[in-house]
Formats: sequence, structure tokens, C-alpha cells
Amino acid sequence: MSLSDESQIHSLDRAVQLTPTGEGEYLGATTDLYWNVIGPFGGATAATLLQAVLRHPKRLGAPVSLTVNFAGPVAKGAFTVRARAVRTNRSTQHWYVEQLQANAQGQFEVQTTATVVTGARRGDFNVVENTLPQAPAPEDVPLTQIPRGPNWFACYELRAVKGAPPRQWNGSDAGDSLNQMWLRDAPSRPLDYLSLTATADFFYPRIWRRRATQVPVGTVTMTTYFHADEAALTAAGDDYLFAQARGQAFFKGFFDHSAQLWSRQGALLATSHQIFYFKE
Amino acid sequence: MSLSDESQIHSLDRAVQLTPTGEGEYLGATTDLYWNVIGPFGGATAATLLQAVLRHPKRLGAPVSLTVNFAGPVAKGAFTVRARAVRTNRSTQHWYVEQLQANAQGQFEVQTTATVVTGARRGDFNVVENTLPQAPAPEDVPLTQIPRGPNWFACYELRAVKGAPPRQWNGSDAGDSLNQMWLRDAPSRPLDYLSLTATADFFYPRIWRRRATQVPVGTVTMTTYFHADEAALTAAGDDYLFAQARGQAFFKGFFDHSAQLWSRQGALLATSHQIFYFKE
Repeated sequence: MSLSDESQIHSLDRAVQLTPTGEGEYLGATTDLYWNVIGPFGGATAATLLQAVLRHPKRLGAPVSLTVNFAGPVAKGAFTVRARAVRTNRSTQHWYVEQLQANAQGQFEVQTTATVVTGARRGDFNVVENTLPQAPAPEDVPLTQIPRGPNWFACYELRAVKGAPPRQWNGSDAGDSLNQMWLRDAPSRPLDYLSLTATADFFYPRIWRRRATQVPVGTVTMTTYFHADEAALTAAGDDYLFAQARGQAFFKGFFDHSAQLWSRQGALLATSHQIFYFKE
Repeated sequence: MSLSDESQIHSLDRAVQLTPTGEGEYLGATTDLYWNVIGPFGGATAATLLQAVLRHPKRLGAPVSLTVNFAGPVAKGAFTVRARAVRTNRSTQHWYVEQLQANAQGQFEVQTTATVVTGARRGDFNVVENTLPQAPAPEDVPLTQIPRGPNWFACYELRAVKGAPPRQWNGSDAGDSLNQMWLRDAPSRPLDYLSLTATADFFYPRIWRRRATQVPVGTVTMTTYFHADEAALTAAGDDYLFAQARGQAFFKGFFDHSAQLWSRQGALLATSHQIFYFKE
């Protein structure tokens, strides 16, 4: 494959690119490729805040958990990220991260916050209790053509297995919100914590399946737990992940989902949860 | 029931008691009743940090989500809690909270951090997709006698349904880590966000069921999503909650669990997740 200078860096790496401006302080910018409706794709924002910790000179260990709170819409253009180690223990480290942008009055506003735990992986006990669901291999599932939508859809290659968005927005209830697919970055890219983080935010809103109505929605907060070290990520390579999400409760303006991301070999690399707001 | 002056306040309310020392700054203290092994019961700490937001004069709306990061062991005695509204929107508000204590050198250290989202509940769409499991009524399940353990065990009344701790610590694998029970505060207490938060941390470590070995463990971070308004909490009253937790992945020193708390009537009041460290 011949690459122009411009495209020699993967679009995800460009989206999470941060230029240090001090210890734990960085400048970044939104990218068109990961643009969503009124801000960047939340998965790219989540990966960017994790990146601020990964690049911090005092960081110890690998990501164990990440909670991202989507406080305000990130505007097109530059942003500042500040990451601070709140507490460093022998085998875990706790981080607080903020993403800021100047508003129309020139005042800095917090658009996103995150807490991150990094830790040392020890021992070799490894049991997957929530196992990879029965599903046809990705090669046996047709590539899903996403007709049109926000830019960032093109950053993923998707083979829908179960629970695709309703074909008709007729207000009927699909009865459950289970969504399953094979999924990877497009173009494909070796898995790391950044792409795992972004991919965990891929799912369309579960309420659209329970209402067959495109009610306005947005993620309020998202938490991802990592069950992978470098060896597990390397083993997953640039192959498809099996991604699954299901809503648990829809209650007066907010609903949650619980999600899992497995490698083709059945390693449960990440478990992830979100709560969304929705308008009726 | 005749109450002495000392006991006229419920033990949970005493544990989460905060005295304001400034806007969003409070003094609190650990209590013996909720003491665990090397610090207070994490559920009481989680409820205390939520309380700092609930009591804040600028708080808008009710709890939607709470992430608590257990950064260091809280020592017996006084602590400071600081809660700050990072961003206030029309219908959601984002909070950052820290719990601090002076160390032996007199320096303040962060023991716990939290992010909280509060929000306005709107509309009446209400669907429970993860429904209350089939189980005998609490009246038909014998009261579980917890033989001995940390003080805080006595703060709960428990009727074990499935997945009790191993009777023999013989290193065998129970095959799954599903744990189900009817559970409420002891003495019983009308449900609110504080007791719901604390109760969501009740479960014993899932790895003890997969290994039948009391390996050292601790919660690293815990996230709870609330699917309840005041009316739903009032409807649950002081009755039992059906509490369920199950591990998804155990990987090299850390494991997660996913938990649900239903009212007897089947309202899924909270979904909750944790990741623990463990030593082999």
C-alpha cells in the first residue's frame, strides 16, 4: 500500500495526538474524520483523555479502568487536556483528567472529565466467565453498509450479527436491545488501549431499538474496565473484536447499557458501561 | 421500639454525616459500626462522597451516576471531603469529589476520589430490560447467619439465594461467580440514594467463589448508575432489595463484577460495576 505523507499516521492516532505544553498538560485538536453530530465521536474523546495519562512521564502501569464524563459538547478545533496523578501506590495509580476549551467569552470551560486507574499486572490467573457468544465467523458475515451518517462511521468496519438498528422508524419495540457485531478500525490497526477504548463506544443508542424512534440521546458517562496486558493486545492484533451491548434499564430520561469486547480467540479484553440521557 | 439518644440516628446516617466547613467542603469521621478490615466499608465511603454532592447548596437534580475510586486506605478518624461542580448544564451537572486525610507527616493525602452526575428526570418512559430473576420471596428464604467478620456485616440483613461464599476454602472452582440475595439495611431504613449506594457494595469478592481461597482483594473503582427517582425510592420503602452480582473477567491481578439491585416489585433501581485487585 502506498501512503501519502498525510495518511502515514492512522486516523485514530491523529485524533488522539497531544502536544505536551507542561507536565501533564497537552494541546490537542478535534479531527474531521472522527466528527460526530455536534462534537467529536465520544470514543475518540475517551481515547484522547486516556492518552494524556499514557503519555504522562510519571505514569506507572497499564490502564485498569477509565471513566469518562461527557460534561459539555467539544467544539471543533483546539483543546487543552490536563492529567494529574492524584495518588500513587505501590501497584496502582489514580488519575484525574480534564479536557478544556475556551468559550465565546474566552473563558476556559471543562468539556470532559475522566478518572483513570493504572496498575501493575501480576500473576497469571485468567478466567473469562462471560464467554464469547456463539456467532458465525466474521468472514461468514457480510460487511454492513452504513448508508450515511456522521464522519466517524467510516472509521470502523462492521459486520452486524444481531440487533441492527430498526429498518423502519415506526415506534415499535424490538423487545430487547441486544446488539452484537464483529468490529474493527478502518483501516485496520493493531489493537492497543486507545483503539480498545474508542471501539467500546461504537454502539448506537439502545433506546432506538426499544422505541424505533430516533429520540435525541447522548452519553453522560462511560466506564471501561481493561482485562488485557500488552501480550493480550498483541494476540488480538488487527483482527475483528466481537462487540456486544445490551440495555438494562430505561428510566425517565436516562438509560444504561452494559457492553463486552472479546477477541476472536475469546479473550474478554474489555467490559464497558454507559448511561445516556434521552428526550422523549 | 425505644431508642436511646445515641441511637436515634440510623447507623448509616451517622456514617455519612458531614459538617460543612465551607462551600462544598465538609468534615466527617469514620464510624466503628461500618468498619471493615483496614478501613471503612467501601459502600459507606461511596455514600459519604455522594452525600457531599447531595448536601451541596448548588446541586441540581438527583444522582444519575457515581464513580468512586478507592485510592488509599481511609484511616480511623476524621476526614475532609471536597465537592466541586465542574460543569452545570441545563439538565445535568458534573461533579468532582475528593476525600482527604492528613498522613503521619501532617500532609493531606487523597484517599478517595469520585465523579458524580446529577440530572433532572423527565418524561415517564420506564422499561426494565434486565428483569428481576425468579427467586423465592424473602419470607421464604432463611435469614443468613454471618458467623463472624468485620463490623459492617451487622449493618445488613441478608437472605442468601444463590452463590453464597464457599463452605470449604479448598481451592476448588465453583464454576461461576453468580451471587443472589435479598438484602436490606439493619435496622431497616427507608431507601434513599445513600443506602442504595452503600448496598451496591455489599457483595463478597467474586474471586473467592472461583478459587475457594481468601486471596487478598480490594475494590479499585466502583460505578453505580441510578434508575430511580424519589417516587421509585419511596415505593421500595424499607423492604428487601434483590441484589445480584457476577464476575465477567479475572485477568492477572484484577477482576470485575456487574451487579443489579431490584425492588421486590421488579424495579431495577441501580446497576453497578466494580473492578478489584487481587493477589494470587
